[in-house]
Amino acid sequence: MAAEAANRRIVLRNHVTGFPKESDMELVATGTAPSRVPEGSAGAVLLKNLYLSCDPYMRSRMSKHEETSYVPDFVVGEAITGYGVGKVVDSSHPGFKAGDYVWGMTGWEDYSLIKDPSKALFVIRHPELPLSYYTGLLGMAGFTAYVGFHEICAPKEGERVFVSAASGAVGQLVGQFAKLMGCYVVGSAGSDDKVKLLTEKFGFDDAFNYKKEKDLNVALKRCFPEGIDVYFENVGGAMLDAVLLNMRVRGRVAACGMISQYNLDLPDPVHNLMAVVAKRLRIEGFIVSDHYGRYREYEETVARYVKEGKIAYVEDVAEGLENSPAALIGLFSGRNVGKQVVVVATE
Amino acid sequence: MAAEAANRRIVLRNHVTGFPKESDMELVATGTAPSRVPEGSAGAVLLKNLYLSCDPYMRSRMSKHEETSYVPDFVVGEAITGYGVGKVVDSSHPGFKAGDYVWGMTGWEDYSLIKDPSKALFVIRHPELPLSYYTGLLGMAGFTAYVGFHEICAPKEGERVFVSAASGAVGQLVGQFAKLMGCYVVGSAGSDDKVKLLTEKFGFDDAFNYKKEKDLNVALKRCFPEGIDVYFENVGGAMLDAVLLNMRVRGRVAACGMISQYNLDLPDPVHNLMAVVAKRLRIEGFIVSDHYGRYREYEETVARYVKEGKIAYVEDVAEGLENSPAALIGLFSGRNVGKQVVVVATE
Repeated sequence: MAAEAANRRIVLRNHVTGFPKESDMELVATGTAPSRVPEGSAGAVLLKNLYLSCDPYMRSRMSKHEETSYVPDFVVGEAITGYGVGKVVDSSHPGFKAGDYVWGMTGWEDYSLIKDPSKALFVIRHPELPLSYYTGLLGMAGFTAYVGFHEICAPKEGERVFVSAASGAVGQLVGQFAKLMGCYVVGSAGSDDKVKLLTEKFGFDDAFNYKKEKDLNVALKRCFPEGIDVYFENVGGAMLDAVLLNMRVRGRVAACGMISQYNLDLPDPVHNLMAVVAKRLRIEGFIVSDHYGRYREYEETVARYVKEGKIAYVEDVAEGLENSPAALIGLFSGRNVGKQVVVVATE
Repeated sequence: MAAEAANRRIVLRNHVTGFPKESDMELVATGTAPSRVPEGSAGAVLLKNLYLSCDPYMRSRMSKHEETSYVPDFVVGEAITGYGVGKVVDSSHPGFKAGDYVWGMTGWEDYSLIKDPSKALFVIRHPELPLSYYTGLLGMAGFTAYVGFHEICAPKEGERVFVSAASGAVGQLVGQFAKLMGCYVVGSAGSDDKVKLLTEKFGFDDAFNYKKEKDLNVALKRCFPEGIDVYFENVGGAMLDAVLLNMRVRGRVAACGMISQYNLDLPDPVHNLMAVVAKRLRIEGFIVSDHYGRYREYEETVARYVKEGKIAYVEDVAEGLENSPAALIGLFSGRNVGKQVVVVATE
């Protein structure tokens, strides 16, 4: 009889300071792949993981924090956790049944036992769409873009919208949601190819490669001679500082993330906060999980957009659990083009 | 026949960079004190100025800006303008009559002709109270404190409130409004005497002298072991940076002013903005003039508080128009204790 397959997992080897490396994580094969929810685990779900999501916020979880952050730190020696898509293999929870496809918080491993699935997972209502979309467009990143743009930015038709990290999982969708409501939209990204994606694939009105600009303030003035009403903030640091100089009166900044800052011991300085007073700006952070009560409405809206061809979506797909550490780390050098996904299994 | 009195005025001699000096302004005596609204000035009011208000936002107006700020720059060679209290000497506007006491935008001079008084002035409804209060408590600064605290900070009973520049015109009132609604209130100020005022006169729960603290983060952690829900921002720079480290999840910052930054060519760096994302903070600037539609409600409420002894109020009074430049400049070194007023005339 052949040996049973192990349940492979990606574990954190050590907490990280500075720029993360692949060697901060490792693939370990432990135990055997389970096929049932164990006895005594009432209300649990056994998941076969299909697609894993690599997201910038995970960097914070790789560090050791003295105070609790908005997400808990990863535990050294245990499997990394994150958003993903899986198939229910077995369930002792009435809300889930074997064969359901789900998305939500799972482990970076072949199989995960989810003990409180109603808090962690959504059953996928449109499995006819590519399942991997539920790691991004139809999952956390997409809903983040939607909530951040529509709720936090409170945009109006015709307003001038700037999106940084605009070809990323969230940025590409913010830009498209903004276009759908009739805004003027400009994005920044870190390569000419990404810039081309923004204008040619995602329909941005204009875009620039921030790495080629000597002065971000000049670049923003060129793209927004009359200033910016809404900034969807994904990068922080120098970009935020330049944006503050270019905001219009009563402008709004949705602070979704600050990826340029995550690997720095001392975050970059921001000098221009007096603009908040002088121009009556609002800068507001948010976390998507506060808004999940409205996720189903989002899922239906965007599934329809996808079927109608109203939304374009670009994924960067890495194959195999063993390649997930490199895929995650690639986010911080901007190696990915579009939403970074890892395929663990397809069925 | 005795020579008629001149209409003395304080004019700006030059636009200012860096720390302002008395010699950036000068007293000039020009023309004669008018007694009537001139022919051809329909809808105008001639005001005898009684009390002038020295306010930090005026520093910005002393500089020359390439772009329009939220308030226009002062014009070199012309009288400085600002909030003040005056008595109507003559009026060709139906909303004002000779003998009315008013507060609002006027000139730093003995007499001012106000051409569009319905936009610039409020008739004082409680002249039985000290008229100088309408330069602060019952005027712009007080209403700023009220709007900024109640509207922008959206406080709840029992929340932890921090106020910087807390003995100033705005800060002393923010602290008292916060206490009136049952918050825990801590203030910072720049001298031991001011700190004493905060706790002994204005009823703050705690206070500290920021000049004596080696580490503002440590000071804030001592005063707020569980963190800050609401920060009323008057100073900016290093204090804001330390506050960001100590905000609680969903905390709110009302950005009213940043007096520590007004005289700097390069504003101080702020490093901790990632807290906005991680803790879902809201930082919001505001300008009181957007809210004047509700001023009358404020005036009645606070006039009643004053009569009932529910509000304490400290003014720092300079005597004579000729001393107004020194009084204004004193704000930026923190020389004033409480609201800085200049008495031009008492009747």
